[in-house]
Amino acid sequence: MPCKKCKEEPVMQLPNSEVSLCKLCYFKYFEKKVFKTIREYQLIEKGDQIGVACSGGKDSTTVLYLINKYAKKVKDVKVRAIAIDEGIKGYRDESLEFLKEFCKKEDVDLKVYSYKEAFGKELDEIVKKFPRPCSICGVFRRYLLNKGSKELGFTKLATGHNLDDEAQSIMMNQFRRNIKVSARLGPITGVIRNKGFIPRIKPLYFLMEKEVASYAFLKGFMDKFNECPHTSASYRGVVRDLLYDFEAKFPGTKHNIVLSFLEVLPLLKKNEEYKGSLNECEECGEPCSQKVCQACNYVDSVVKKI
Amino acid sequence: MPCKKCKEEPVMQLPNSEVSLCKLCYFKYFEKKVFKTIREYQLIEKGDQIGVACSGGKDSTTVLYLINKYAKKVKDVKVRAIAIDEGIKGYRDESLEFLKEFCKKEDVDLKVYSYKEAFGKELDEIVKKFPRPCSICGVFRRYLLNKGSKELGFTKLATGHNLDDEAQSIMMNQFRRNIKVSARLGPITGVIRNKGFIPRIKPLYFLMEKEVASYAFLKGFMDKFNECPHTSASYRGVVRDLLYDFEAKFPGTKHNIVLSFLEVLPLLKKNEEYKGSLNECEECGEPCSQKVCQACNYVDSVVKKI
Repeated sequence: MPCKKCKEEPVMQLPNSEVSLCKLCYFKYFEKKVFKTIREYQLIEKGDQIGVACSGGKDSTTVLYLINKYAKKVKDVKVRAIAIDEGIKGYRDESLEFLKEFCKKEDVDLKVYSYKEAFGKELDEIVKKFPRPCSICGVFRRYLLNKGSKELGFTKLATGHNLDDEAQSIMMNQFRRNIKVSARLGPITGVIRNKGFIPRIKPLYFLMEKEVASYAFLKGFMDKFNECPHTSASYRGVVRDLLYDFEAKFPGTKHNIVLSFLEVLPLLKKNEEYKGSLNECEECGEPCSQKVCQACNYVDSVVKKI
Repeated sequence: MPCKKCKEEPVMQLPNSEVSLCKLCYFKYFEKKVFKTIREYQLIEKGDQIGVACSGGKDSTTVLYLINKYAKKVKDVKVRAIAIDEGIKGYRDESLEFLKEFCKKEDVDLKVYSYKEAFGKELDEIVKKFPRPCSICGVFRRYLLNKGSKELGFTKLATGHNLDDEAQSIMMNQFRRNIKVSARLGPITGVIRNKGFIPRIKPLYFLMEKEVASYAFLKGFMDKFNECPHTSASYRGVVRDLLYDFEAKFPGTKHNIVLSFLEVLPLLKKNEEYKGSLNECEECGEPCSQKVCQACNYVDSVVKKI
């Protein structure tokens, strides 16, 4: 079948649909969906200083490209990129190289924060003593992203989370009885939290992983298919496989999970119990739910012992 | 390991636990859990006329046995059994035989309603023209259970739904974006609905399928492992397998799904939008969401054409 819009050679069939589109019409379809999400959920407003959390990967590069494009049409919106250098040779050094080039081409400021500078060790060093570092790494990355966002004066931080990521998170929280954490999901989060927590926005919220991958590939945003060498089998991975199988049998399942969740989310957010107040970490002042934040805990219990 | 309570020979290891129990201690554990559900969720109150929807299968026989036991301790509570004879040779005739014997032994009144009498045809006849009859059969069964419950003066109707059934229903509604239907789940449902809808109660709500099967087996409630000859591959079956696999990998998942859901359920019920008002069917007067109920529709479109 030719492109449904213009009869050109198609490159992509849309999910849960018979519609095929050519490259240019696919770009239009994709961008329209992203911009609609931004408008409908007020992800970006006049005066915003948007930071985009970039890794050099397909999702965040797509977000950076499209937010930059969107911002040109909105008054007083500034866009900058922020990246974290965990210190992973053969992986992050390469993706950051790509990102630097990309930011130069797109004329976007990029600020890189490193584990080495912030915590004293690179992940490659940490991993020698702590062979399954994903949880530490996640905590350190989120810590630096939030701290950096404040230093750089961001009003919101955009991430590359797509519909697949969100469906997985919703399921994981249910399977582990973690509804309070689900109350912090959605296209825009952290607005009602305060104490130094920068709200997060997810412009790719309604786009499937494979749609983002297709867009990024066709746009030339996919540099290499590198994977982090320290990745270990994760709970998320098992849930991802489960949803993949289910989607193959019953197309539309992932969308339905997310849309069902969005019907419930306002009720969760309204419910005081789930709002969850934040403290300031006694050691570093960053927002946390305990007395001392998890990053400071890991620095004391892991990094300082290396 | 011997029985944790009395050191006798164990028969059963409890789910998500290291605890093993002997037959008598397992009975105590099981009954305590059922009675706690009844009390905590006020499933049975003084003055109630409880109907138990019985099929002769393990779940509903267990419910009948335990509600009857419980009712003896509560003032002014009457218990009767109601069963539906779909007209399935080699299956329902045999399970109803078992049920009649059981009710006689337990001294409980039993009333059987049949498809033949109510709709003019047995399921064995319907299936010749309509080879995948599960949806019709479900509609007819629920119709007769509700209508019969009113004729018999029941204030509540107890069913054999267990924790596995509920976890499946929760997932199915999410995967198909049917949150309004989820608002009608829970240990007690239909209380706020009216127009002739008898509230449903689920005393086995917090017990897993395998716990109920073990109890029923040890009590001698399991007559035969008959399965309906007309059963076809169902969406529920696929979700059941998925949860089975996940529970095997991550024990506790089914409980967490149900407990997560119970945290959200009060918010759903509070939300006017989900309450869903019922009409009276223009043809038969039974509660329905459209002008004419699904049972009357099926009688017109299927049964009358046989």
